Formats: sequence, C-alpha cells, structure tokens
Amino acid sequence: MGKKDNRQKALYGKDPWKIVETEFSPDSNFLDETVFALGNGHFGTRGTLEEGYDGPAGTSMEGTYVNGFYEKVPIHYDEPGYGYATHTETMLNLPNSKVIQVMVEDEIFSMFTGSLEHYHRVLDLQQGILWREMRWISPKGKIVNIETQRLVSFVDDRLMMIKYTITPVNFSGKIMLISMLDGHVHNHKSENDPRMGTSLQGQTLRLERIDQLGDMSRLLQVTTYSKLQILTGVSHLIQSDQPYKRETEIHGQMAQHRYEFSAEQGKRIGLLKAAVYLRGDRNHQENLWEMADKVLNSALEQGWAHYHFLQQQVLEDFWNNSEVTIEGDDLLNQGIRFNMYHLFQSAGKDGYTNIGAKGLTSEGYQGHYFWDSEIYILPFFLYTQPWRARKLLEYRYNTLDKARERAATLFRKPGALYPWRTITGIECSSYFPAGTAQYHINADIAYAIRHYVKATSDYDFLKEYGAEIIFETARVWMYLGTYSLQRNNSFCINTVTGPDEYTAIVNNNFYTNAMAKMHLHYAVETDQLLKDLYPVEYQRIAAKIQLKHQEVTKWDEAASAMLLLKDEELGIHPQDDTFLEKACWPFDSTPSENYPLLMHYHPLDIYRHQVCKQADVLLAMYLLSDQFTLEEKRANLGYYTPITTHDSSLSRCIFSIIEAEAGSAEEAMNLFIKTARIDLDNHQGNSHHGIHTASMAGAWLSLVAGLAGMRLKGNELYFSPHFPEKWKSYGFRLKFKGNCIKMTVREDIVELELLEGEKVSVTIFGKKYRVSSDKTLTIEGRGDV
Amino acid sequence: MGKKDNRQKALYGKDPWKIVETEFSPDSNFLDETVFALGNGHFGTRGTLEEGYDGPAGTSMEGTYVNGFYEKVPIHYDEPGYGYATHTETMLNLPNSKVIQVMVEDEIFSMFTGSLEHYHRVLDLQQGILWREMRWISPKGKIVNIETQRLVSFVDDRLMMIKYTITPVNFSGKIMLISMLDGHVHNHKSENDPRMGTSLQGQTLRLERIDQLGDMSRLLQVTTYSKLQILTGVSHLIQSDQPYKRETEIHGQMAQHRYEFSAEQGKRIGLLKAAVYLRGDRNHQENLWEMADKVLNSALEQGWAHYHFLQQQVLEDFWNNSEVTIEGDDLLNQGIRFNMYHLFQSAGKDGYTNIGAKGLTSEGYQGHYFWDSEIYILPFFLYTQPWRARKLLEYRYNTLDKARERAATLFRKPGALYPWRTITGIECSSYFPAGTAQYHINADIAYAIRHYVKATSDYDFLKEYGAEIIFETARVWMYLGTYSLQRNNSFCINTVTGPDEYTAIVNNNFYTNAMAKMHLHYAVETDQLLKDLYPVEYQRIAAKIQLKHQEVTKWDEAASAMLLLKDEELGIHPQDDTFLEKACWPFDSTPSENYPLLMHYHPLDIYRHQVCKQADVLLAMYLLSDQFTLEEKRANLGYYTPITTHDSSLSRCIFSIIEAEAGSAEEAMNLFIKTARIDLDNHQGNSHHGIHTASMAGAWLSLVAGLAGMRLKGNELYFSPHFPEKWKSYGFRLKFKGNCIKMTVREDIVELELLEGEKVSVTIFGKKYRVSSDKTLTIEGRGDV
Repeated sequence: MGKKDNRQKALYGKDPWKIVETEFSPDSNFLDETVFALGNGHFGTRGTLEEGYDGPAGTSMEGTYVNGFYEKVPIHYDEPGYGYATHTETMLNLPNSKVIQVMVEDEIFSMFTGSLEHYHRVLDLQQGILWREMRWISPKGKIVNIETQRLVSFVDDRLMMIKYTITPVNFSGKIMLISMLDGHVHNHKSENDPRMGTSLQGQTLRLERIDQLGDMSRLLQVTTYSKLQILTGVSHLIQSDQPYKRETEIHGQMAQHRYEFSAEQGKRIGLLKAAVYLRGDRNHQENLWEMADKVLNSALEQGWAHYHFLQQQVLEDFWNNSEVTIEGDDLLNQGIRFNMYHLFQSAGKDGYTNIGAKGLTSEGYQGHYFWDSEIYILPFFLYTQPWRARKLLEYRYNTLDKARERAATLFRKPGALYPWRTITGIECSSYFPAGTAQYHINADIAYAIRHYVKATSDYDFLKEYGAEIIFETARVWMYLGTYSLQRNNSFCINTVTGPDEYTAIVNNNFYTNAMAKMHLHYAVETDQLLKDLYPVEYQRIAAKIQLKHQEVTKWDEAASAMLLLKDEELGIHPQDDTFLEKACWPFDSTPSENYPLLMHYHPLDIYRHQVCKQADVLLAMYLLSDQFTLEEKRANLGYYTPITTHDSSLSRCIFSIIEAEAGSAEEAMNLFIKTARIDLDNHQGNSHHGIHTASMAGAWLSLVAGLAGMRLKGNELYFSPHFPEKWKSYGFRLKFKGNCIKMTVREDIVELELLEGEKVSVTIFGKKYRVSSDKTLTIEGRGDV
Repeated sequence: MGKKDNRQKALYGKDPWKIVETEFSPDSNFLDETVFALGNGHFGTRGTLEEGYDGPAGTSMEGTYVNGFYEKVPIHYDEPGYGYATHTETMLNLPNSKVIQVMVEDEIFSMFTGSLEHYHRVLDLQQGILWREMRWISPKGKIVNIETQRLVSFVDDRLMMIKYTITPVNFSGKIMLISMLDGHVHNHKSENDPRMGTSLQGQTLRLERIDQLGDMSRLLQVTTYSKLQILTGVSHLIQSDQPYKRETEIHGQMAQHRYEFSAEQGKRIGLLKAAVYLRGDRNHQENLWEMADKVLNSALEQGWAHYHFLQQQVLEDFWNNSEVTIEGDDLLNQGIRFNMYHLFQSAGKDGYTNIGAKGLTSEGYQGHYFWDSEIYILPFFLYTQPWRARKLLEYRYNTLDKARERAATLFRKPGALYPWRTITGIECSSYFPAGTAQYHINADIAYAIRHYVKATSDYDFLKEYGAEIIFETARVWMYLGTYSLQRNNSFCINTVTGPDEYTAIVNNNFYTNAMAKMHLHYAVETDQLLKDLYPVEYQRIAAKIQLKHQEVTKWDEAASAMLLLKDEELGIHPQDDTFLEKACWPFDSTPSENYPLLMHYHPLDIYRHQVCKQADVLLAMYLLSDQFTLEEKRANLGYYTPITTHDSSLSRCIFSIIEAEAGSAEEAMNLFIKTARIDLDNHQGNSHHGIHTASMAGAWLSLVAGLAGMRLKGNELYFSPHFPEKWKSYGFRLKFKGNCIKMTVREDIVELELLEGEKVSVTIFGKKYRVSSDKTLTIEGRGDV
C-alpha cells in the first residue's frame, strides 16, 4: 500500500457529488475500504465487501466501530515513572454484521474468481448510501446480476441496513445467501508505526449471550477489562417470490442465516438485512436484548425506502447549511465535499463522544480524540451545524473531572489538565514528551470555547459549561509558568512541547505561550462577563471551584507579562528559546523515501535540528490573527516554509491560510488542493488506515479562512477573498448567529446572500456591510459595491 | 523495608574487618541478604538462609546471578518510534543451590520457630567466607548447635561451597538434612520503581536435562529467548561417623538429596555441599555436563579447608594492594572495606562482563552495566588491581561492534555510540530522554581509557583496543554537534541529557560539552601518539575504520571551539543553556517523604525546575580538575549544593571530593561518611534491592581523591591531603605504574612508603618528591620534609 495510490489521479471519478469506482483492484482495496466507509457519529463501518475478501494479505482490514466504545488496557513501561499514563483506551473492532455470502449453485461468489462484466461502486454524498452493482460470470459460466445497497442511518443512530439483490441471468437453479453476524473480531496489530494500532492482542470481547429467533440473531458481548456491554443484532427480510428454505446456526460468537432459493432465470431475489449496535453502559437501565428486537423489527417494517429517503432529507439539510462549490474544478469539489461528508459521519453527537483522528473508519490512533477536535474540526461544525460544535465541547465538560484528577496527580493542586489523547478523558499518551508536555491542549480547548461563544452568542453554554472549563484549565498555566528575572520578569513557560512534534521539551514555545496568554486573558474576560451578566451563576461556579479574585488578578498579570519570543534581526518569532540555534535539517541529503522523518530517524536526531513536522508559530498567527502584522506573517512564512516537512496532516491547511493572507494565492491554492483530496488521493500514503479528520476540516478552513479570508473579530465576520484564477467561481454557505450566509466569489465579484435570518453585518475588504435577506450583496473588485 | 533500617546505627557491629550480626530480625532480613551476599565476579548469591525463610511477605528475595547471564526480551512501546531500543536484557535469577533444610526428629528447623539461644552471623572480609552459628531450641525442647559456612570461590569462579554442621545437644535421635537444587526460579516483579526490576514474567528458564547420580545432581536449563544454557550442579560429602541413609528425588526442575542420620547426642554431623554455575554460551565447545562432574568431584576432594585457605590468600593479596585504614573510626573502616570487598566480589574479570549497578547481589536495574563502571568504579580497580580495570575496558572493546551498529542506526554513518544500559552491548534503555540522550557515555569511556593509559602506561592496551574505541566514539560528537553562528561560531551540542537526570533534553549541557572536548582532544592526541610510536598499528586501525587526517583535524577544531557555558555574574558554569532561567524547586514545600523526587513527581515537573539529582557540573570539575580554578570550584559548589537532592547514589562522593578541594574538609567528611556506609546503613533506603556499586567506589574516591586530594596530572600523581581532625590517622595503598604506594596521614604528618617498586615521583602540596623503597618519605605540615 502506501503512496503508490498517489500516482493515479482521480481514482474515484470526477463526479462532484459521488465517489465512484468502476474497476475493482486489490491494489486500491485497502484504501477503498476507508473511502467507502459509512458512519453516523455513533458508529461506523469500513467499506468492506459483504461477501468477504480473498485478496492478498495486508490489503484489507475489516472494521466496525462504535464511537467511544473501548477496551481499557494497562500501559506497560519498561522504565516506569511517576504520573505516567497508567492505561490506554482502544476503540474496539466490533462484530461484523455486514457479511452476506453467495452460493450460485456450487460456486461461491467472489471478486477474485470468474469475471466481472460490469462493476460500479458509488458513495453518494447526497443520498447517504453506498451501492455496488455488477454482473458476475462464474468460473462455470453462470451469470448473475448483483446489487448491494448499504446505509448507516442518520436518523436512527443504532441502525445499519443492507439491501442485497441478486438475479440469475442465464440460468435457473439454486442460489444461497449466507448472512452472518460475526462476533469473532479483534483489533489489528500495530505495525511499529506510532500512528497506528494498539497493544490489544487477540479477542477482548467475551460472549455473554447469543441467540437466534427466526430471521434474527442477537449477540451480547462484554469487554474484558473496561466491562462495557455491546449488543449487536441482525435481522432479515426476504424480498422475493421465489421459494426458499431457511437454516440458522450458531458457532461460538458467530450466527449464520442461510437462505436457499430455487431461483428462476431473470427473477430478482432480494434480502433486506438490518443490523443494530447498542452499547450497554449508558443505557443500562434499558433491556438491550429487547431493544434490539424492537429496533430491528421496526427497521424491517419501515423498509429500505423509508430510511433511504430520510438519509436524503438529512443530507439535504446538511448541504443547505454547508454546501461548498468550486465551479471549474470537479475534483476539488468532490474532494472537499467528501471531506465534509466524512466529518458529518464521524463526529459524536451525544456530548460523551467526540471525533477521532481517523473518525470511525479505522482503529488508527486507537480511536483517540486529540486537540484536532477543537483547533481543526470544531470551526467546520461551528459554522455549519453549531449544535454539533456545542456537543463536541460538552464532551470536554463531561470529562472535566478526569482532567481535574490529572492536574491533582501532576501538580497536587486544583485545576484541570486535559489529556493529550483519550476516549473517556484519562490521559492515554504513553510518550509524555509528545503527550503530557503538550499542555497547549488546555489553551486549545479554551480557544474553541471562546470561538464558539463569540460565533454563536450561546452564553447559556458559557455559564453552564464553558466558564468552569476556562477557569479550571487556566489555573494550570500558573503552575507551569514562572516569572524570570533574567528575562525582564517575563512570564516564562519552560519544558513544554508545542504543536510541532519535531521539537520537544523546550522553553517558551511560541504557540504555547501565545495561546496561554489568550487563555488567561479570556479567563479574566469571562470572569468579568459572568460577574456582570450572570452574578448568580458566577457565584455558583466560584464557590464550586474555590475561585478568588486574587487568583484572577494573577492570571491577568501573567497574561500581560507572557514572554512572546521575537527575533528582531530575522523579523520572526522563534519557535522556542533555542530553536534558531539548532542546525537546519539536512534536507539535501534526505532521500524522499525517508519521509515522514519520524519513521526513519530517532526523535533525538529530529529534535536536534531546525525541522518542523507541522505549523506551530504559523498556527498561532492564524488563530490569533489580529496580533500579528502582515509583514510578520510574511516573514514567518518565509522562514518556516522551507524547514517544514508537513509530515503531519495538520500542517498544510494552516500554511495555506497564511499563504492566502500574507503570501501568494497560488501557493495557498496548491496547499489547499493537496489538503482537499488528502484521502481520495492518499497524499499521506496511509489513508488505508483511516481518514484524516483534522486535515479534512483543515481543507474547509483553507477555503473559507484561507482563500476567502474569513476571520472572526470581536463578534463579527470579516472576509478578504481572493478572486479565483483557476476556477470560474467558488462559494460556500455558513451558519452564523442563527443566520445562513452564502458567499460566492467569481472573477472580480463577491456576492453575499442571506439564506436564513433577516440581516447580518459582515466586513469585506475592510469595509462593513449589512446583508439582508431580501437582497444579494454584490461587491465588485476589492470593495466597490 | 526502606529507610527504617537507617535509624539503627551500626546494625552490623563495629569490627573493622567483619560484618557481624548478633540478632536475627525479619525487619532487617531483606537488607541482610544484600549485605551478606557473596560473589566472585562470575557469579553471586544473596545472603539468604540455607533453610529458607518463613518471615513476612516482602522481607526476603532469593537470588543467585551469573554475571551477564541474561534473558533477552522485546521492549513493548505503546507508542513506538524509530531507533528505540528494541530489546532489553535482564540478568536472570538462577537456580538456588544453597538450600539445606533440617528436620530434628519431627520438627523443621526455622529461625521463626522455637528459640535461638545464641546467634552469630559474620561476613569476614579477610577470610572471604560467610558463617553463621547458633544454638536452636525447638518448640519441643530439642537443642541443636548449627554452624554454616559459605564461600563463593575466588580461585574457581564456578564454585560455591557450603559447610553445614549440626550437633544434637540434649538428645539422640533422627536428624535429617534435605539438600536441594531448586531450578524453579524466576525474576522478581518490578514494583513500579524505575530503579528496580524487569518486565520478565514467570519462569523463563526451560528444562533441558536433569539427573541425579549418587550425591550429585545436575540441571541443564536454557533461556527461552536468548537461548543461553546454564548448568547448575550440586554434590555432597557427608562428614560424620553417624549412620545415615540417603534418598534422592527429582520434581520437575528441582533435585533433592535427603540424608537421614541416627544422631548421637554431642556428636557433630557435617555436610559439605559444592555447587557449580556453568554457562554454556561461551564454553559450548566443552561438555557442560561432564565439566560439572569434574569440578564438583574435585571440589569435594580438595575439601573446605583448601578453598577457605585460598580465599584468605587471595584476599591477603587484595588488601595488600588496596588496604584502607581509618584509625579512630571503626565504623568508617568497616564501611569502606565492606565497599571494596563488594566491588571485588562484583566486577567481571573476563573482558565479556562488567560490573552491574547492583553488582551480583540483586536483579535491580536488571543487572545492567552503566557509565558507573568507567566514571565511578574503574579508578578503584585502576589503583588497586589494574589488570581488572583493563578487563573492564576490554569489555567495551568486545562490545564495540554493537556500538557501531547503534551509531549506524541512529546516524547512518560510521562511528560508535555506546548504550546507556546494557549487558551484551545493545542499548537496553527504553526511556531515551535519560538513556540514549546521555551521549556522554562515549566520553566517559574515552576518559576511562585515557585515565587507565596514563596511570599504567599500558600502550599495548591503547593500540590493541583503546585507540579504536577512542576514534570510533569521537566521531559521534561530530554528528551531534554543530557550529552556531549565533554563538560566535562555537561548537554546540544540542538536545542531550547530562549526568543529572533531573534535567533532560537540553542544549550544551556543561558536563557533556566539557567531556566531549576532552574526548576529541584525546582522540587527536592518540592519533598523533600512535602515528609517532606505533605507525604500523596506526595504519591497521586507520585502514580498518577508514580514518583520514582531515577527520582528525575536524575533531581538533571542534574541541577547540567547544562551547563551555559560563555565567560571569554568578561566576559559575550553568548546567545547560537555559538551566538558570528555570524556577528553583520548591524545597520548602516538599515534604521529606517525597524524596527521591523521581518517585513522587512527574519528570516534566522536575525538568521544569532548577533541581539536580546528582553532580553534573561538579563532576566535570573533578574529572577535568585542571581546567578550573579553586575559585570556580567554590562558586559552583556554592550554587549547586542547595539545589542538589543527592537522590542518585552517584552524587555525594563527587560533592565530597570538590568540598575537600575547594570547600570545607568538614563537609567533605560528612559527605564521605554518608557515602562510605551507604549500604550498611541503608542510606538510600533501597539497599535491600542490592548494593550500590558506584557509590561504594565513590566512597573510596572520596577518601583518596577527596580527603587526600589525589589527582593524576600528566602521568604523575599529585596529593594535597587534609589532615584528619576527627581521626587519629587515615591511609591507603595504591598501585601506580607497577609500584605499590602506601600513604598515611596523621596529625600534621604525611607519610609515603613504597611497598613495591623501586622509586616513584609524587607531588605533595605542590612540591615534587621522589619516593624510594628504602626510605619512608615524611612530610610535616604542608610541605616541610
């Protein structure tokens, strides 16, 4: 696998609303499974084939995941230390309910035997289904038409449906459909790639109960260590007037339903299969066993068409709020919509789950949630489905107690330190130099809350959840920082790791200090805001967390005294105290196959050099845009671009944004393009191990914040769009304070429509406009209405 | 366990040549087992009781270890990375051959039943044996006298002997001795203490063959992963005229010999037990099975007295070359001799083994060899048994290829990087911030070679082994260092960890840079020396390692340009680039039970502060004494003393030396005293888990280099002794260039005798003297003959 898929452009067609495959190949199969994965925020399943896979080893990985459903495993350290993460949580590979094997007379249907006369696989971004149709000629010459349709329901989170249709073309005879629920599953072994895998070995799901009742099978399992229950159920409906007989069987944790038809040439045989994934821990009051029965029966009763229709309804709504269009580049259109679609499929919606680095398409990074959620992904939801952004933030509130425990362990003081990677809120990073040391996670979360509140005016959220997080997390900076006499009594934060993981354990990382300053100031601002507007709520929070005025004053002082490095000669912000003194990475003598560097060089070797995996100073320049001049942005861009490898998928989008603002639109465009099709073109070479959710959202940011120059200042939106050179036009829709705005940029014209809401102020090219619902705002050139 | 033993001073009597215990207590048992451990460099065994131990859980640990006999286990990383140590090696706990249980009629002898009327246990530092005698009154009133003697032979490395004697005092009747060879052994679990243990779980020794033949049992086992063979054998000789019957039995990997005597009141029954430990990997050409037979037979034939006599002979020689005497402080005398004795017992002698952090007394630190060998322990051997110092250095030569492989992995270039911790030469440290990052190991080894060559003039060693090591290891500094434009084109070494493990991943660690400078200079010096004196050898080496003149020139340039930090205002050498900017550790608010800090604070918390685990700058000031003025030493001592916790046992001895030179003799003395009895008084609280070999040697250094002020300058010895205030006198013997020197310091007088050799020059109080064998040199005051 790997980068070889890269060569072939447009592996999935050019339809801007469809991901289309017309040729099946084991070369791309592993990647296909990721691309064609379905999900609904609660669970997801890889785009594997119903009939199973007979291709070469290492070109497929079966996987179905319930968001946040995990096994908890102790972390072994050969050399343990105080305060190390004690356990890791791994999102579990769950029973496979997709299996439908086919026997045509005595031949087993497989993509690897006989021949395909026709083959089509499509993920439809407007219909919300995955379908496959083909004409298969068996080795013995039997011809069948097969059509499969699959959906993971957006309206019933627990439900997947598969509609399987087979028609004998040139014969009458026996056709058998063997449908399974296969509970013999385990997570895949890590390949010594730190970005992959897990230390889980073998099956960790234990059988609690399994049964079959007519066309239904139910399987209740419990995890070995975390003691979580999962019920997987399947049920079937035959849609055929051909006679058939049914046999059922259970082997261990696997249930089988065999339907043997006496098929007549030319007559369709249909099998509708419904599957449910119910987790027991948060629904323990209900009877999972009976609930599965109900959901499955109701699903089969309502039928495929019903759920199919609802998929379209939900997506129509989604695209109405968030559609992005690039006229003149279908591949980009396809790429960015594919990204948005996958984000939509991946993000948790219940306040207890979030969005993993690989969404629900793989167990890579163990299904962990990172800062990606707040810094990269949240803006997309915030401006398209703000309620989902709120849910992602509520997740942090719901894990605040665990962050408090972590702070207590590390500092023996009040406050909260969020984990670098986690499912339930405990620190799961076993490598603290690029884990716990990335204290900026606290500021990232604070930033996201600030962003959310300013873009939505949802003060209800702030007083119920946000403020408490802001205060508790702010406290930690006071333990980490110190006033340095040697440096003019500046507030210094030593021994940290910033976003750039190619530098670790340094002092005064620019991003960390800048974000900590923002965080502390915002904590002070929030303190005042709550006192003024919600004194009762304020009292409740202050009493709960023992917050005193004196403490807030110290935050203010520290924020004001924060050391922000600047090298006057170069006109740039050094990434940390000693970054500029290090030797530059020997790029000239580094062969291209040695990227990403982390896979080919020891961390110490990398840390010793000026080389960045990803945006660090530049990320601060985007997030805290106001605090930097254009000149500064240009200088830093010029300095950091040649030493940044973009080995992290979180990097190019940020460079693209800064390029758009301060550099060249062309370079911004190039970076955007690489980001926008990261998984469809497998740019990182590892998309077979799952999508890159942060980068997918980053692509959206590259367009909206990059090319269109959107910034939130105060409580208002600012734009400064680049006019498209390569395209006819580009445009996008945004939700903002309850309004829905549509911006279109073409040739020399910027158009703004208000699709929902009555009026809204926006600033374009530095000039403020009021847009109302009755009239499209049209600006020609750079500011003349 | 732990520090509680600390309270009671002189747990082991005050005899300056004997470690004596007159009361048996489970409170001190775990510690006793370490203190009374025996060894001979090849193998060692803890001072556990022959009859086994019935005390509370956690107060005993059985253990027998063959130096360098290990199991190899893959290291699991939850987040793996390139170039991480892939395997660790663990010195294995081997079969217990000491077991001799006693049945007195129907009662089992135990220290925990009945009562002891008399009890004595003694480790005799001149005889080289451990003996125990007691009168036991059984619960039913039977009285027996029991005497056990044990030795681990200094002349036959493979051999242990136990002489067991029992006499019925007030009865005639049945006495049974049950002697065992117990192969059911495994290493002990780590207690989440990074200084302990291993990840080995359960028994890793697999049975290959076991048999019994008359009084002999042999057990051949093989390790599961490293595939090393170990043969343990025991044989017995009954020394009694009482009738007895013999029974033998094998259970799995355990062999039993039961001797049942019809004992007559007042008549002694003696059992002589011989045991051998033969490792197969380096003797595979020989037949272990037959060799065991031979060694055991010969041992029993020669008898106890023979080996006992030889022990004394060997020790007489040892003390003749190395005796230390402190007149007026028996406890110190006892302490420092105990240390030397244990060093003598622990160090490998074959060029393939070295000396573990815990010697052969425990599996702590997995039996690994560290820089302790070169920097702390080597000088002791160098000045008392230089051939053993050479063997320790040959070990490094014999593992040079593995160091080359490590450099190739990390740098993809020629050269050699020694492992931070290892048995066979591979890097076994899974925590690279305090492992691989301690690149100073290369310079430490170079320093030791330089020291050895200068003190012995053994140029044969230099050209055969030393030079190749010096050159190959020097190369690595050129990969690690870089010329910094920002710092006057100084040669900077970034992203390293120095000796002080409470600071990690820093730039320009003072010790590292200073030692690298020494190393590079010495490499240049060696290059020239070999070219001049041994041109043929030089050509061979240069051709072998592709050494070019140009490369040596670059070493010289880098050494000369090396950045050595100095803070002019404070007059000190900062430990690294940013050390002085960090906040001081909050000592005032740190409860005493929170030491050692590493057990109670996260590394990041510790790294963020000015706090030292151990000597770092000060160590450089001792090793490179000439390069610093007295004033500088005083200033640095003043600065680092209050921020150093001495949580490492490698610290106080160095502070003691610098105190003696630059500070106060009294403080030097206090530090020396704490070091000298580190294990006898359990100063670190963990001596039950094994002796502290580096600190033991450090105590010797504190006396010789500290109080007597010995330095090697050029090729000559310099002394600057402090006169004893608390003691009547102190003195020591040294080997130097084939001579044996005895120095005694009393009141106002320094006396120097030449015990071996004809004449030698030494400088005392800055004045050069020639000492000859016919006349004692006596200096009164500070320099008047």
